[in-house]
Amino acid sequence: MKLLSFRDGRGERSYGIRNEHGIVDLGRRLGARFPTLRALLAAPDGLALARQHEHAAADCQEADVVFLPVIDRPNKIFCVGMNYAAKRQEFNETNPAPTLFIRFPDSQTGHRCPVVKPLQSREFDYEGELAVVIGTGGRGIRREDALQHVAGYACYMDGSVRDWQHTWFTAGKNWHDTGAFGPWIVTTDEIPDPQQLRLRTFLNGQQVQDESTGAMLHTVAELIEYISTFSALSPGDVIITGSPGGVGKKRVPPLYMHAGDTIEVEISGIGRLSNVIADETPEVEDDPVSLLLAETAAA
Amino acid sequence: MKLLSFRDGRGERSYGIRNEHGIVDLGRRLGARFPTLRALLAAPDGLALARQHEHAAADCQEADVVFLPVIDRPNKIFCVGMNYAAKRQEFNETNPAPTLFIRFPDSQTGHRCPVVKPLQSREFDYEGELAVVIGTGGRGIRREDALQHVAGYACYMDGSVRDWQHTWFTAGKNWHDTGAFGPWIVTTDEIPDPQQLRLRTFLNGQQVQDESTGAMLHTVAELIEYISTFSALSPGDVIITGSPGGVGKKRVPPLYMHAGDTIEVEISGIGRLSNVIADETPEVEDDPVSLLLAETAAA
Repeated sequence: MKLLSFRDGRGERSYGIRNEHGIVDLGRRLGARFPTLRALLAAPDGLALARQHEHAAADCQEADVVFLPVIDRPNKIFCVGMNYAAKRQEFNETNPAPTLFIRFPDSQTGHRCPVVKPLQSREFDYEGELAVVIGTGGRGIRREDALQHVAGYACYMDGSVRDWQHTWFTAGKNWHDTGAFGPWIVTTDEIPDPQQLRLRTFLNGQQVQDESTGAMLHTVAELIEYISTFSALSPGDVIITGSPGGVGKKRVPPLYMHAGDTIEVEISGIGRLSNVIADETPEVEDDPVSLLLAETAAA
Repeated sequence: MKLLSFRDGRGERSYGIRNEHGIVDLGRRLGARFPTLRALLAAPDGLALARQHEHAAADCQEADVVFLPVIDRPNKIFCVGMNYAAKRQEFNETNPAPTLFIRFPDSQTGHRCPVVKPLQSREFDYEGELAVVIGTGGRGIRREDALQHVAGYACYMDGSVRDWQHTWFTAGKNWHDTGAFGPWIVTTDEIPDPQQLRLRTFLNGQQVQDESTGAMLHTVAELIEYISTFSALSPGDVIITGSPGGVGKKRVPPLYMHAGDTIEVEISGIGRLSNVIADETPEVEDDPVSLLLAETAAA
């Protein structure tokens, strides 16, 4: 089953199923009980309820909606760096512990939405990655149980501002609309083994990354074990599992993204996440004060 | 004015003012409009409304409440590393950009609450720091305007799990109940210059850090400018400005924290944050599934 978050034709936030007919609007059916996909995942019977509509007639088509990040506002987004041998070699990384950094939710964007190249960057780079979405949370999850805590998998384009990245990543990975997350989650019944997927990235149709997720140094199960040792995971949390080699910074000459470029991440069994790069406009696009006040009013 | 968050005698979350009489419960007075201190800070007239009660009679005393982290669930917590010359020397840091990492809200705890030493750590270290709480959010804030975006200042004890820290910090800084934040915010009218404060840390009454915030390499204003360049700040966001030298890991022999130790951070003009170290119990203390379901039910 493919689950996605979107804005409908009237601009309302919703979520649903992408099936053989189009998009089934689950928000319309289950929204009173579960206002978001994250809330649905948090309910013990959430996925089972969704599955009752798995093959329902479509309420709308992809062209009618604006895709949101699959999980629009995860509680935690963990990002793994240097998790493929080729990438480690490119960046001379030798520390054996999983490299971890954090993205804030407002750095994300959805399938087919613009990915924004910051005004201040000359080194805006692509990273195609497998995203893991947590279904059942917990702390101290053992690797042998870990995949039972996963709701599903999606594609992620971890847009990286190399000239602000440093060894601690934070400032290079949190610019708004740089992390594309989509198009949808594919639930684990369709992906029993996340280490047997083919991950490819295309810049303007040209393949720039091609690797099996079997080449990850720390598997999905190991990452869940490691992370949940120090931080509780909860439904809708996201772990982005790292990029294979072939990123733009380490090419000769370097290959960065610019306005108008199309960047795509395709993972077998999931689909293809596609975004066009846009230049940042000098206006501030988010107004965090209004956002918080709206949140407070809704609470 | 000193603003704090707490649980009252019945265990209800609230916030208020610490004045010459005790604690004035603002949640009781303004909670219908502003359910949290963060929501109060987000309102243009929030601080002015609070100030009407600045010298009111106390509703309770410190002994009657459980202190919460001053901002209980900030949207973003940015932490600055290596921001004092002595600390940089201790850790051989040479990169001139601000070192930034992120804490999740569930890693925090309040004044007088236990700070939890993880079972998995043998190197649980202290860092006394000045915390900046954002009042007015924004992106692209210039350093000359930056202090107008601050609501106030508090003490922070950035408990650091050195054996999990690495150069990317995430796994060393996100264990639950390791970041003590309090006792309160002191508003900026009482602290016009955050670079003229004396910051001291005491382990079991013994002074282990003593530095002026004037020795910061990147000032509070510069940090706000730098961070807001890549990530929008919003009311209640927290910037922890880094630790002076004198941390336990770099002493000979090293000086780590253990169950029963008292760790205190005192900043002139603010007060003294005090916590006792406790060993982690094997049970999972937070249950993120219930938390999210409760949140969803409340929304």
